Formats: sequence, structure tokens, C-alpha cells
Amino acid sequence: MSNILIALKPKADVPAIQRRLTELGLWTRKLTTAGATTGFEVTGPSPPVPSETLSSIEGVASVFVTPTGHPLIDAQARRAVELGEGVRLGSDAAPVLFAGPCSAESPELVNAAAAAAAQAGATVLRGGAYKPRTSPYSFTGHGTKALHWLRAAADANGLLLCTEVMDSERVSEVAEHADILQVGSRNMQNFGLLRAIGGAGKPVLLKRAMSASIDEWLLAGEHLLANGASSVVFCERGITGHDRHTRNLLDLGAVAVLAHSYGQPVIVDPSHAVGRRDLIAPLSHAAIAAGAHGVMVEAHPDAGAALSDGPQALDLSALEQLGAALGLAAPLRAA
Amino acid sequence: MSNILIALKPKADVPAIQRRLTELGLWTRKLTTAGATTGFEVTGPSPPVPSETLSSIEGVASVFVTPTGHPLIDAQARRAVELGEGVRLGSDAAPVLFAGPCSAESPELVNAAAAAAAQAGATVLRGGAYKPRTSPYSFTGHGTKALHWLRAAADANGLLLCTEVMDSERVSEVAEHADILQVGSRNMQNFGLLRAIGGAGKPVLLKRAMSASIDEWLLAGEHLLANGASSVVFCERGITGHDRHTRNLLDLGAVAVLAHSYGQPVIVDPSHAVGRRDLIAPLSHAAIAAGAHGVMVEAHPDAGAALSDGPQALDLSALEQLGAALGLAAPLRAA
Amino acid sequence: MSNILIALKPKADVPAIQRRLTELGLWTRKLTTAGATTGFEVTGPSPPVPSETLSSIEGVASVFVTPTGHPLIDAQARRAVELGEGVRLGSDAAPVLFAGPCSAESPELVNAAAAAAAQAGATVLRGGAYKPRTSPYSFTGHGTKALHWLRAAADANGLLLCTEVMDSERVSEVAEHADILQVGSRNMQNFGLLRAIGGAGKPVLLKRAMSASIDEWLLAGEHLLANGASSVVFCERGITGHDRHTRNLLDLGAVAVLAHSYGQPVIVDPSHAVGRRDLIAPLSHAAIAAGAHGVMVEAHPDAGAALSDGPQALDLSALEQLGAALGLAAPLRAA
Amino acid sequence: MSNILIALKPKADVPAIQRRLTELGLWTRKLTTAGATTGFEVTGPSPPVPSETLSSIEGVASVFVTPTGHPLIDAQARRAVELGEGVRLGSDAAPVLFAGPCSAESPELVNAAAAAAAQAGATVLRGGAYKPRTSPYSFTGHGTKALHWLRAAADANGLLLCTEVMDSERVSEVAEHADILQVGSRNMQNFGLLRAIGGAGKPVLLKRAMSASIDEWLLAGEHLLANGASSVVFCERGITGHDRHTRNLLDLGAVAVLAHSYGQPVIVDPSHAVGRRDLIAPLSHAAIAAGAHGVMVEAHPDAGAALSDGPQALDLSALEQLGAALGLAAPLRAA
Repeated sequence: MSNILIALKPKADVPAIQRRLTELGLWTRKLTTAGATTGFEVTGPSPPVPSETLSSIEGVASVFVTPTGHPLIDAQARRAVELGEGVRLGSDAAPVLFAGPCSAESPELVNAAAAAAAQAGATVLRGGAYKPRTSPYSFTGHGTKALHWLRAAADANGLLLCTEVMDSERVSEVAEHADILQVGSRNMQNFGLLRAIGGAGKPVLLKRAMSASIDEWLLAGEHLLANGASSVVFCERGITGHDRHTRNLLDLGAVAVLAHSYGQPVIVDPSHAVGRRDLIAPLSHAAIAAGAHGVMVEAHPDAGAALSDGPQALDLSALEQLGAALGLAAPLRAA
Repeated sequence: MSNILIALKPKADVPAIQRRLTELGLWTRKLTTAGATTGFEVTGPSPPVPSETLSSIEGVASVFVTPTGHPLIDAQARRAVELGEGVRLGSDAAPVLFAGPCSAESPELVNAAAAAAAQAGATVLRGGAYKPRTSPYSFTGHGTKALHWLRAAADANGLLLCTEVMDSERVSEVAEHADILQVGSRNMQNFGLLRAIGGAGKPVLLKRAMSASIDEWLLAGEHLLANGASSVVFCERGITGHDRHTRNLLDLGAVAVLAHSYGQPVIVDPSHAVGRRDLIAPLSHAAIAAGAHGVMVEAHPDAGAALSDGPQALDLSALEQLGAALGLAAPLRAA
Repeated sequence: MSNILIALKPKADVPAIQRRLTELGLWTRKLTTAGATTGFEVTGPSPPVPSETLSSIEGVASVFVTPTGHPLIDAQARRAVELGEGVRLGSDAAPVLFAGPCSAESPELVNAAAAAAAQAGATVLRGGAYKPRTSPYSFTGHGTKALHWLRAAADANGLLLCTEVMDSERVSEVAEHADILQVGSRNMQNFGLLRAIGGAGKPVLLKRAMSASIDEWLLAGEHLLANGASSVVFCERGITGHDRHTRNLLDLGAVAVLAHSYGQPVIVDPSHAVGRRDLIAPLSHAAIAAGAHGVMVEAHPDAGAALSDGPQALDLSALEQLGAALGLAAPLRAA
Repeated sequence: MSNILIALKPKADVPAIQRRLTELGLWTRKLTTAGATTGFEVTGPSPPVPSETLSSIEGVASVFVTPTGHPLIDAQARRAVELGEGVRLGSDAAPVLFAGPCSAESPELVNAAAAAAAQAGATVLRGGAYKPRTSPYSFTGHGTKALHWLRAAADANGLLLCTEVMDSERVSEVAEHADILQVGSRNMQNFGLLRAIGGAGKPVLLKRAMSASIDEWLLAGEHLLANGASSVVFCERGITGHDRHTRNLLDLGAVAVLAHSYGQPVIVDPSHAVGRRDLIAPLSHAAIAAGAHGVMVEAHPDAGAALSDGPQALDLSALEQLGAALGLAAPLRAA
């Protein structure tokens, strides 16, 4: 968010300028020098307005802006990015469904989930080989084996593969198998990892940290592009809130800001955002309505037996219903 | 949110029970007595499940629940409430559009806004006669006069009128003119006011306080019904967040919880939630997708000249576009 | 918080000015016009610096400031306010202890608590006659009777009386009995109530709302002074947080800002902030160290039987220990 | 926080049990089975109470507890940990001062800061060789060279060295030079890094993530001990808040919980918490009063020229004043 300051000419018509700024949708605060109104600060929730528009207002002496901190992110704005052959995400592209299990628990599970994902109209298989876990005593994924299961299942079902990388030293291994590298929320500001993942030169899915501001999120994306990532897709997955009815607090306002103000490719993960199977469908629709270019959902053929996040996983028929309701075409690259 | 505790029989099959609970979408924590697993606590973001379902699971000894604190609110669940003759809001009813200016600044303004609202498919005129203002030196509304302007404009355009009451001593005056009494965010827990407003026996629009939990919001609704309100419509208008790109943090997860888990009538005010004219339309659609039964938006024929909240007001053509995009029928009660 | 903007002269030595601003403790962002650095915005957590200091820096063309929104609050800065005869709170005055029960449940309770408070070195008796309650079915205080009990107990023990007013129509009744009128957190932005309470012309204790910014809190104080309050004492009682170990999130940083940057009289209510009897003493000491001019604690002769907030009430011997540990003199006005 | 559930015997005296629980400082909610009160849930901000105390209450049938998730952290409770020869931190030990520059910018800077730190009574030199930065275009530290400067300066002034490790592959290099390995806020849940740092077998300073709950923080500590760390010292450095007057929101309630309820070694970093040089001293005192066993402050001989965080750095005379005011003995291991 770049603040804007507007300095006025000596005898400027202050109310007329104020009126014009409000017409442009800008929230302002008067600035004074030695007690006289000499400018306006454009604050908080204002939409972007070109500085030329402002400097051309009668009575404006000069316009001061904060320069962008993320020129490379700005440069990928307002166009779809390519995730893989023929799969585009963003602006004018159709919504993209990422689906799959929380964790790749077995080849059978992964295959079943991938087949259902393809059937539902997904173009990307998601699933964890390496899992971040709050407790050191929890299941942390099947690692290398799981990467092979996921790749095979993606190929068999004509899907791209998106999976999380948690450690710099695993980047090359994961990049060998995955089409899209995922940065988890807990690592959004793990700058060494961002550097290493950027260096793989692939599309990256960047989850928002639990209390990141939009500026911090955009700057984390800049770390990726500055280090060579081919593109960055932002993923909102809920921030830390104070109410216990949902696992996290889904911030669709931020999604609208990214999609509409910044023109960035952005998707939503309602599974982690609310943590409730019963609310995935309405919030997936809400995400798309707010401007998201896709959704990522967890699905499992036998959620009761899932080794992690079972309560938020859709069963495979619910996944199919969701895909249909989102109006997704039949699988694009089905084998 | 009522926690649930499940005590197990001595030789219960703990993994099988755990699996069944996960299938039901429940997040659980194991409970122990003297080191042995003897129960489960159902935590956080779990969906509602009848206690009979749980007590019938093989191996469950007993189920403990927290009794509801809001029996009257529960009793209005899963059916539409009547706001006025022929205007229903909730479950199976069509989405309701509330539209109008932040403040009723003049009869001309109010008429123009009401006509445009009706044209856009709104059924309720919103507008402030008494305005809460953070600074003691800001415009606080035209009071009694404004109530007359609003009532006349509503009648002339076949609309219901919803307006805020800020003080107990004004309840009878406002209730004389308005069809729906609005409780503002800052007064959600002004219990004397809730008592007085409830006593008017009318439908009440209850805005969520800036950091209220869902439980606190439901209990505020209970105060209204316990004192005689004919119905309560909940209105999400954004909670306090830490990012400056939007005025507040729109919590559509909470809307989904109210609409789908609690079956309550709920609408969204995207104008205050994000404070940005450019994001009102996408977030209105998102609100409806998430489960909201209506939206409330600010509109002004000359936003640059608005005495309050100009930057978030739609102009009248944008309002019309929004109504059309929401697929709202022509005005129901047009004169 | 008033943002400051600094415009530079054409050939200003930008690094030298940046360095000087940092020496002054200011966080800054560069501002540009047409790509060239032409100014600095002073942001976020910067301490107050007089604009003359800034305009006298070599190379600075002009300094723009946001004018204060609370001139009356500013005018009461940096001096102690008088709560009652001989009892001063603020800057150079000794810490003031407010103590008493959550609710005035009976004359006996109130007397016992008042005697213990006086013994502990308190100068102000706190206690509720009218209680805000989240549920409409909870005990709401004994009202008028309780006011008499509290007044009598305060007088018998040489204490001032501070009690909450929740409704405009009760202001004159409460003002007749109390020395200090308390605005509760839920009413910090109940502007009609602030007007009525201000009109009583007494000192007011203004609790911070659960998610109020410091600016909103100061402006609420301005409402009180603008309507006639003789002084405003700010009271931090914890804001809404996400962790369940404490009832609310005690914000001693805000206390330090009020006490040191704004020079305002400020106290802390650790009882509501953490809701835990076992942490009242350390956090009372922390409050005073951070700059608070007093603390307000709940105490009850028989906490197990308290009708509200029992788990956070100190017993009377713990109250006495706390008073002694805070080094409070013997009661100032003991009968 | 481990929830506790209490099941009652059939004809238990419910009010008497409720009263006893409140006396113990416990917040409770009634639990019912088929409408009758059959138990209590101990909620939210309750202090720890042994389950034996509860099961011995007349009328209690059984007590269910959530087993701890962090047995190794629990095992280091209520005793001081050893940071280096003769330097203990925790329970009964004297407060420990960590001081030094944000970043080790040059040997001269590091030496000057270390000498001042020792003079001020610090026992640990802090300073960054590898710095996490929100923007990819900011200074990220002098790396290996800086480690040598820091080690030399620590040795020359009889100080221990604490410095941040950001990447797994740097752990052995940093561990070679530092006495205490620091995990930064952004990496609190970078589990690969926790594993690697734990493996070095040294004391670890674990900063709290920007929106971590206390449970998540304790579990991150468990990751460290489970992987071999010799001890974990927790460091509160402010969480994400919504007010702009301070850089972050200092949570001294959490510090009190860690120190008093969990008996863990904990320090506070007021520099990052508030980001304001003018408030470091009062908040350092407040931290110690709340229960912290030490403070970590940034100090710089020429703050205006600092490459990072200059506005929050104390100058060296302010550092000395702070050390004196905290009553720290002369340097323990001065050369």
C-alpha cells in the first residue's frame, strides 16, 4: 500500500480538492503547516489512483508517492500466469481447481484422490510429501516415496502436481517431481527457502503467513521472483483470528485487493481457512466471487482414516459436486 | 459454540471411535484419566452434530454438552423472518438489498437515493438520522427532520426503512418512522439500548461489534428477542484487522457459520467492511455465495459532497449495476 | 498518532537528512515525485518530535502535520488530575489503588471489601451497581440499593467511589453517589452516554474498548471533556486476543504510549485483562513500571460465592499483600 | 493449555462444587447430559490446578485432562538453565541483559557495542550476522565475517554470544562461534531449522512468532529439545497488533503465563516489541516485573547510521543507564 501525499498551492480551493479526492474514492486527512491546510494525506483503504490524475487537479502543487517495493511482482500483474502446458491461472483464465489429500499416505490413496480430482475438473493435484506439524511427535509425511506416488498419480490423470517444500536442501528433489512448488504459511518469510525455491525457476504457490500484511505477502513474492521463480501465485488460507467456530479467519477482502487492485494471480484454500468440511463449498464459491482465480481443497477417499486434517477433507463425491457447481470443464488433460 | 465431551466405556475401541468422530467432521483432543484415554473433547472449528449421534457410537459411555445460551435465537433458526409486509429475509427467501446514503443529508438526496435503490431492486432504504462519530467535532446527523425525510422517501418508492438508533430515549421516536431498527457495531453490547430496542417489538438489524466473537453476537441477539424484538437479522460489517488496504476485515467465514450452522438470517455490509467503492461489487457477490441473505450498501448521488463515508459510497449507476448483477427482481412494492 | 510529512529542498542531502531523522527515533519512508526522492513520510511507531525540530534540519523545505483531533485531551497532559479532595492521579502523583468487588452484592460484602481496600492502601473503592452482562439471563447488579451501600462503605472507610454508568438516564442518579464515573469497555463509543456522563462535570474513568486503537480511545476521551467532564483517566483492561491462557490481551505498550508520549493519566485493570487471580500481582507491578499511575483490582471476601468474575477476584489478604508490595501509604482519608 | 473436564456423581451438590472450583480460580461452564447438570468444563484463562485436587472434591466422579504435548519442555520447568559457564537464566537467577547492535556492521561497531554492553551489566552480546529482511533488496548482514567480529568482541569483553541462524546449512557454522543460537520469529515454525538447531546441542533462544499461541510456542520449544537442544529460553518480542503507535503488540500477559504458570525461562525483547527507543526503559522494567528473567535490547554507538532498525536502538549511554536502573551487577566475566 503506497501512501500518497498531496501538497497544495498557496491559494488552493481546499473544499473543491477534498471533494474531487472523495469522488476518486480516496480517504484523506488534512495536513497543515503552521496551522494552515497545506495538503492531504491519502490514507488507509484507498484504491490505487495514478499520480498524474492527482497532480492535474487544479490547486495541487505536487504529489509525493512511496515507490513500490516489488517491481517484479508489479510486472506480472493483470495477466494469467502459466502453471504448465496449457494451464493458465489469472485474469481472463477459467478458475483452476487444485485438489488432493492433505498428505500422500499411500499410492492407492493418492491415485484414488487424483482420479476423483480429475473427474471433478481439477487441473492440479495437491498433496504433501513433507508436512509441517506443530508437534514434533506427529506424522511428517512419507517424503521421497510420496513424491513418486504423487507424480505418478498426476501423470496417470493428466494433472499438474503442486506440493510443499519445507527445506532448502529438498528444493531440487521436489522440483524434479512437482510442476508448482508450494511455500507454506509458516515459511512465507523463511527467506533462505524463498531464495532456494526461486532458484528452481518454476511457478510457486505462496501461502500467506498467519498474520502477514498484504505488503509483506507481496514482498515475499518479490523474493521469489528476484531469485528466479517463473511466476508467483498467491494463496489465501486464513489468518489468525479470535473466534473458535472456524480454524482460521478467511480474509476475502485481501483476495479482492490482490485480484482487483494489484491484478495478481490469487487462489483460496478454504479447507485450511475454515477447517470445516461443511463450509468448503459456500466459501469456494465466495472466493471465486471475490476475485480468486482458483481454489485449493483437501479431499480424501476415507477421511475418518486420514493421518492429518481429516475433519476438513471432502469425500470424493463432495469433491465432484464442488467441481460441477464451480462449472469446471471436464479435465483438460485427462489421459 | 458448544463444546462437547465424550466419555468412553472401559474397554472402548479408541481408534475406531476416533475414526468415526473424524468422519463426522469433528476435531478432537484425547482426554485421559490417570494416564489412560477415557474420552474425547470436541474442539474448535467442528460442525454441529446431535448428541444422540454421538451417544449411539459403540463404546461411548456418555456425552456431555454445554447447554445453549440463546434459546430464543435458536428458535428463529432455519426460516425466513418477515421485515415488513411481503418482505422476507432468510433461508429460502430471495436476497434482499438494503441501499441508501450513509447519512440523510437533505430531502433531495434521500429521495434520489431511494428512487435509485428501488430501481436497483432494493426493498429496504437505509440511511442515518443519528450518526455515531469517532470525533466529537464531526457531523452527527439531522435527527428528527431526517427521520421524516427517510420515511417519506421510503413510502414514495415502496421501500421499507432501516435506520440506526443510538440512544434508549430515541427508540420510540425512531420506531415510529422505521420498519427495522438498526443496532450499530459500537452498541452491540450496549445492553440498556438492546433492552429498549427489543421493547419496540420490531425487527432489528444487529451489526457485529468490531471484535465480537460469534457467541457474543448471538447472545446480543438473545438480549433483543428476550426483550420483545419480533426478529433479529445479523449483519457482518467487518471486524478490526491489522492490514490497511481495507477499512475493516470482512469475515465471511462467520457469515457462513451463521447462515449454515446456526440457520440465522444474516446480511453483509461490504461498504463498511472494506471501505472501498471499487471492491463493493465483488464482495457483495461473495457475501451471497457464502450464505448471506442480503447485502447493505451505501449509495450517494454525489459522493464527493457526502458529509460522511464518501469514499465508500457507490454512485447511483453503480448501485443499479449491482442490483442487476445480483439478479434482484424489480422493486416489490413500487408505488 | 499524527503522521508527519517532510518535503525536501531541491538539492537536499538526502542521506544526511535520513540519518538525522533516524537519530531522532523516527521511522521513515522515502517519498518520490516523478521518481526523485523529494520527501520523507514519518510512519508507524515513531515518538513525537516537534515540527520545529524537523523544519530546522538543513535541506528541509516544509513539514506537514496532521492536526490533533483531541485538543482538550492534549490540554490535560503532563499533570496529575484531581479525583477528589486530596487525591491526585497522574505524572508526579503516587500510584493510586482502586479496589473492590466486581459487583456490590450486599452491604456486608461491600463493607468488608472497602475496609480491606482502605487497609491495603487503596484510595478509591470500585464496585458495580449496574453490571453489563453478555447473557440476558445473568445477574445485572442491585442498582439503586447498591449505590447506597457503596457510598456508605466508601465514606466509612475514607475512600472515593468509582462505579460504572451504563445508561444515559442513570447518569444523574449515579453521579449523586459516585466521585468518579466509569465508562465500561463496551460503551467506549456509546456517544450518547459519553455526552451524558461528560455533562455531569465529574472525573471519568474511561475503559478502552476491546479493539480500540489509541486514537479512538483518545477521541472518546475528547467526547467526555467536550461535554464537560472535569477530567478523564484512561484505563487499559486488555484487548481481544487469540490466546486462551488469559481472558484478554493486556497491552502495556499502549499504557506506555499514553503515559510517556501523550502524558495522560492512565491506570490498568489487570483483573479483567488476564482474568487470573494468580497473575494479578506481577502484572500490577508491570503496569506501574510501564508508566501506569494506578491499578484497579477486583477483591472479594469470599470469591467462591461471588455472583460474577469470582475466578479473577483476589481474596482480602492477597489484596493487602498487593497494596503493601506496591508501597502504598496507609489510607489517606481513613475515618 | 490443557482443558479439564469434571464429571459429577449422580447426586452431587452442584452449587457447592461450583463454589469450590471458583475458589480455586477456575472459570467453568456447566455440562449437561440429557438436560441435567453432570459436569463442568474448566475453560479459558484458568490457572493450573492438579487433577488430584479436583478429584478429591466431594461429589466429583472423575476428572479428564488433556495430556501435555510438550513433556521435555515441562521437564525443564522451575529451574534456571545454564547459558554458559556461570551464567544462569530463570527462576532464582538474577535478570540477564542481552545487548548489542541489530546487525554486526563492522568490527569497530561490534567492539564498541560489546564494551558498552559489558559496562552496562550485560552478560550476553546479541547481534546479527545473518538478517531476515522483508524486502529482497535490503541489507542482509555480513555473514561469516560478522560471526568472527562478534565472537572476538564477546571474548574481549567477557560476554556470551547469541546470534540468529536462519538456514539449516548454516547451523554448524554459527554454532562454532555462538554460545546461544537464536530462532527468529519468522522461523518459529520452520521445523527443519528447529531440527537442525536442536541437533547442535546448545541453548536456544526461541522468539515467538507474530501470531503464535502460547501452546504453539511451547510446542516449537519441544521440537528443539526433542532434537537435542540443551535448553530453550523463550523470548517475547511482540505479536501483530492493529495499532500503529508501537511496532508490535507486547504481550506481557504471555510472559507472566510462561514464567509463573509454566515455570519456563523467558525474556523480553522490548526493542522489536515496541520499536521505539523512548519506551525501551519502562517496558524493560515492566517485563522484569511481569516475570521475565531477562531483557534483550538493541544498542548502537551511532544509531542514525545504523543499517537496520536504527530508530529503536538505544545509544550507549542510554544502555548504560538501563543496565544501572535494572540493578545489574558489574559484568560477571569481564576480561
